[in-house]
Amino acid sequence: MSVTGKTSEQVTASSDLALVGELGKQLRVDGIRASTRAGSGHPTSSMSASDLIAVLAARHLRYDWSNPKSPDNDHLIFSKGHASPLNYALFKAAGVITDAQLMAYRTFGSPLQGHPTPVLPWIDVATGSLGQGLPIAVGVALAGKYLDRLPYHVWTLCGDSELAEGSVWEALDKASEYRLNNLCAICDINRLGQRGPTEHEWDMDVYRARFESFGCRAIVIDGHDLEQVDRALAEARAERERPVAILARTKKGSGVSEVEDLEGWHGRALPAEMAERAIIELGGIRDLRVATNPPEPGTPAITRGGGKVELPTYELGAKVATRKAYGDTLRALGARPEVVVLDAEVSNSTHAEEFKKDHSERFFEMWIAEQQLVAAAVGMSVRGYVPFASTFAAFFTRAFDFVRMASISEANIRLSGSHAGVEIGADGPSQMALEDLAMMRAVRGSTVLYPSDGNSAAQLVGLMADTDGIVYMRTTRGAYPVIYPPGESFAAGGSKVVVSHDDDTVALIGAGVTLHLALAAAAELEKAGVRARVIDLYSVKPVDTATLREANRVTGGRLVVVEDHHPEGGLGSAVLEALAQEARPPRVVQLAVRGLPGSGTPEELLAAAGIDTAAIVAAARRLAGKD
Amino acid sequence: MSVTGKTSEQVTASSDLALVGELGKQLRVDGIRASTRAGSGHPTSSMSASDLIAVLAARHLRYDWSNPKSPDNDHLIFSKGHASPLNYALFKAAGVITDAQLMAYRTFGSPLQGHPTPVLPWIDVATGSLGQGLPIAVGVALAGKYLDRLPYHVWTLCGDSELAEGSVWEALDKASEYRLNNLCAICDINRLGQRGPTEHEWDMDVYRARFESFGCRAIVIDGHDLEQVDRALAEARAERERPVAILARTKKGSGVSEVEDLEGWHGRALPAEMAERAIIELGGIRDLRVATNPPEPGTPAITRGGGKVELPTYELGAKVATRKAYGDTLRALGARPEVVVLDAEVSNSTHAEEFKKDHSERFFEMWIAEQQLVAAAVGMSVRGYVPFASTFAAFFTRAFDFVRMASISEANIRLSGSHAGVEIGADGPSQMALEDLAMMRAVRGSTVLYPSDGNSAAQLVGLMADTDGIVYMRTTRGAYPVIYPPGESFAAGGSKVVVSHDDDTVALIGAGVTLHLALAAAAELEKAGVRARVIDLYSVKPVDTATLREANRVTGGRLVVVEDHHPEGGLGSAVLEALAQEARPPRVVQLAVRGLPGSGTPEELLAAAGIDTAAIVAAARRLAGKD
Repeated sequence: MSVTGKTSEQVTASSDLALVGELGKQLRVDGIRASTRAGSGHPTSSMSASDLIAVLAARHLRYDWSNPKSPDNDHLIFSKGHASPLNYALFKAAGVITDAQLMAYRTFGSPLQGHPTPVLPWIDVATGSLGQGLPIAVGVALAGKYLDRLPYHVWTLCGDSELAEGSVWEALDKASEYRLNNLCAICDINRLGQRGPTEHEWDMDVYRARFESFGCRAIVIDGHDLEQVDRALAEARAERERPVAILARTKKGSGVSEVEDLEGWHGRALPAEMAERAIIELGGIRDLRVATNPPEPGTPAITRGGGKVELPTYELGAKVATRKAYGDTLRALGARPEVVVLDAEVSNSTHAEEFKKDHSERFFEMWIAEQQLVAAAVGMSVRGYVPFASTFAAFFTRAFDFVRMASISEANIRLSGSHAGVEIGADGPSQMALEDLAMMRAVRGSTVLYPSDGNSAAQLVGLMADTDGIVYMRTTRGAYPVIYPPGESFAAGGSKVVVSHDDDTVALIGAGVTLHLALAAAAELEKAGVRARVIDLYSVKPVDTATLREANRVTGGRLVVVEDHHPEGGLGSAVLEALAQEARPPRVVQLAVRGLPGSGTPEELLAAAGIDTAAIVAAARRLAGKD
Repeated sequence: MSVTGKTSEQVTASSDLALVGELGKQLRVDGIRASTRAGSGHPTSSMSASDLIAVLAARHLRYDWSNPKSPDNDHLIFSKGHASPLNYALFKAAGVITDAQLMAYRTFGSPLQGHPTPVLPWIDVATGSLGQGLPIAVGVALAGKYLDRLPYHVWTLCGDSELAEGSVWEALDKASEYRLNNLCAICDINRLGQRGPTEHEWDMDVYRARFESFGCRAIVIDGHDLEQVDRALAEARAERERPVAILARTKKGSGVSEVEDLEGWHGRALPAEMAERAIIELGGIRDLRVATNPPEPGTPAITRGGGKVELPTYELGAKVATRKAYGDTLRALGARPEVVVLDAEVSNSTHAEEFKKDHSERFFEMWIAEQQLVAAAVGMSVRGYVPFASTFAAFFTRAFDFVRMASISEANIRLSGSHAGVEIGADGPSQMALEDLAMMRAVRGSTVLYPSDGNSAAQLVGLMADTDGIVYMRTTRGAYPVIYPPGESFAAGGSKVVVSHDDDTVALIGAGVTLHLALAAAAELEKAGVRARVIDLYSVKPVDTATLREANRVTGGRLVVVEDHHPEGGLGSAVLEALAQEARPPRVVQLAVRGLPGSGTPEELLAAAGIDTAAIVAAARRLAGKD
């Protein structure tokens, strides 16, 4: 096989562009080799961006490949995650993976998965759900400019198809508002999407106008003209005011005549013989090494650790909304310098604004853009901050895909949703989260908390800060009596048996507002001669199986679960799943919201949904054989 | 109380603008009265848009209030649903609700809920989750221009805060691509959001540039200058090429000096005394009637009903992917003129492209914009079409809030998600839906289907067309043997006992790919002397409780549920919930995907997740006491 260029030279910032071009060809070749070997993947989507990445890696990126967690490093996020062959080919060129590792692409057990995930240390976040890399990059860039205050740059490789995702425009709006000159979106406008031409093909004027109107400096270039690429990347690094979008006109499958700019080659590996011809056309297999510029050494402005937190406490019997306790506790947590808070323009309702009072420099307004809210939290998690993001619980459904991907990224983010369930009252069903517990429970490795009073909420918010993974807390709109004394402790996976006797005939299991209703029901049942155990299942996931098991045993399997949520996937499901394999599984009555609620008072709506005290009493009596 | 203007005149298109201005004041007054009576609501957000709506209703809207379902009517969607006081005040002015009904705003049982819902016949869809009205309006406008081919106009009242939602930009991108000159976004730029000034306040140039760059004709006006409003609305109606955005600079709380353009009045009813002063300032209570222009009479180009559908069939044993059966069946359903198909640029993977081959005029490309995909389906459902929208199952998480709201809208939409679970193999976790069943089951009134072979998929897709509400089908990437003969029938709420004996000691319950694994497991178990019943739970919601109950009885409560999904909220939960209240609830072993998968072959990944045939056999043996 003939090779036109040098095969094992080192490519540095001072190498001439011809050699950088050779690197670009190597990236193409290696992407083809890896995907052809795997029998799947997106080589042509990688080839369109290979020149962009070659110039970036050789001349502009500042990165210590031997120390990927260095705070000084630039960040490079492949928002078009399907260009993973290119991403991995770059890692080979950087010398951090071997050619043999590259050839294991997409095989079982290989960290070189079909789309990038952070099982590889040089990857910040999982991508592959389009339109997420750029919003997350905004979070990293916010951390760089406002928290770390380090000169690292955040580079994001975007595809053109993904510019149809609204999340991209949410991201750019925030990027320009926060003047993220440390952010560059490198857009690979290769004209071809998965199933044919993209909507705007090579209409660079449309793209330019849109990016400019969203506050970016837009630089339109030919993405295969190395000098133009080099100049644009230099301008991006030098920019002082705005985020930069490099709009690169490229050709899908660039460099290989059998596929270049042709339809029908998205997400397809080249057949072996064709791959061989392609590699020959590209000048053969090379082993160039790219010696990326080292980062500027620096020290993050924020030192993690330290800061004495005194959690708020509330007097027994005082009426406190858990959302208020959330806000108060955030404010207290602000003593820890790594805690940051993000809001979606509802901080007066979620009470996240409490944090802002003392720590406005670590409070980030994401406006009404819930996808960006979660994405920014993920980006800050990349830099080791402890982000709390809050909005109405119902509106986290807007960001479910971002939460799903955050789990794959193994990000550490804390989410709090207020105004859950019919309890909110007059605002009506659009504002009522009735599926948030199902959604958040279904996320791999998530922690789902749902406190019922001020003291438990405060303790659990404090605990969230030190809990890894996706941690969700549901808070309640209304103020209810504090039932736990200050200092009581709570844990993920815990629960509280609030009322119990040795001879309980039924157990009432609730959380949040329904715990209060269950307590009232137990008092009524007691009068009627029915002994009821009341369990506060504040940790919905993980769930306290031991306590549930004991309740099952004592009551002879009579459990009433009451939740301000649809019957699928919430508290009731958690109880059923926990006890599914018992030798004697319980009978579980699920009181939940089954119809379509309207407006009304909380009391009216709880009654109409059949989850109020009277409904609990009736269900318990039936189960206890008293009716 | 002094009233400055006429109090009971009729306002028509030929009334002078001064009288229309009086109507605008009446709308303000009635919004204040209703919300003050309710003790909550958003009067000031209504007042900023009152002049816009007054001029629209009196001079430009074409609507038969007595026949809200007329296909000829214009549509008016309050994307800023919190302006419900204005929406309802308009209904009073139109004479379709009484003042007493208006005064019942937000009370229990009143159809005048906190945010608009279609329990009122003049409301197309529920709003209140911001950034949804405009995307849905795009769907209605698509129906008007390309299906009905009627001259009705679709007017949407948008707030300024909601322009931060990416879904708005997804909508405008499609609106301009499809040249929806029948769509007008009336943007109420009142400068104040929920918790203070908006990001762009009154920077009308920013808004203009963004709307123009997204292909709209943008008209910037003073939203309280009635002549400007009138001219802009006339231009919007006359536009022939593009969607129109009227960017109206307005004042929140306009007309009442105590609140006008002041912070702190979002989502707050005026206290009674203040309301009294406000009403006086606005000239008192009026009872003007608006006589809206009638619509142009016409006939939809598409006659619903008719068309002979022959569902595809597949030979027993042939290997067919259910996603292919979905596409084939869509194509067959195309014989019904009301069936429309929407795609998110993956129609070659979901096989929705099959429909396009015969019916391209009813195939709508929404590009990679899943929120808009679902919203457009909802909009077409408003006009009585039967929309099918499909993408990868994982990416419906992007649109969960739209599905949630569609349920509140009581919309009839069919969604199909392909490429579910670890079964997809090499593409990796970003593309694997592992929480879609939990998400879709948690939607009120939803139907969730998950067929395992070509013939059941075809029958169930056929059934989807005639099923109301939110109907979701999960399809599988790989091709598996056809196990049901052509002609076999399937129903929502049904299941199939594929293998059974009178003395089964365990039941294996699966759906989709896991049904095939369960069948193989049953054959192995049979050899080992364990009789296993195999149930195809293709209707995940509603679920066939009778068949599960019988399996529970026969097996003495030994059930193994196996699903290519996370363990929370999916098939296992459905089984547990169905049998929760049995006198003898079953022991249920849930085999599900608990870890974080990577890439690999389907077989490797199913085995690694512990949901393959070997895992089912092992679980069944343990449950049957054979290990």
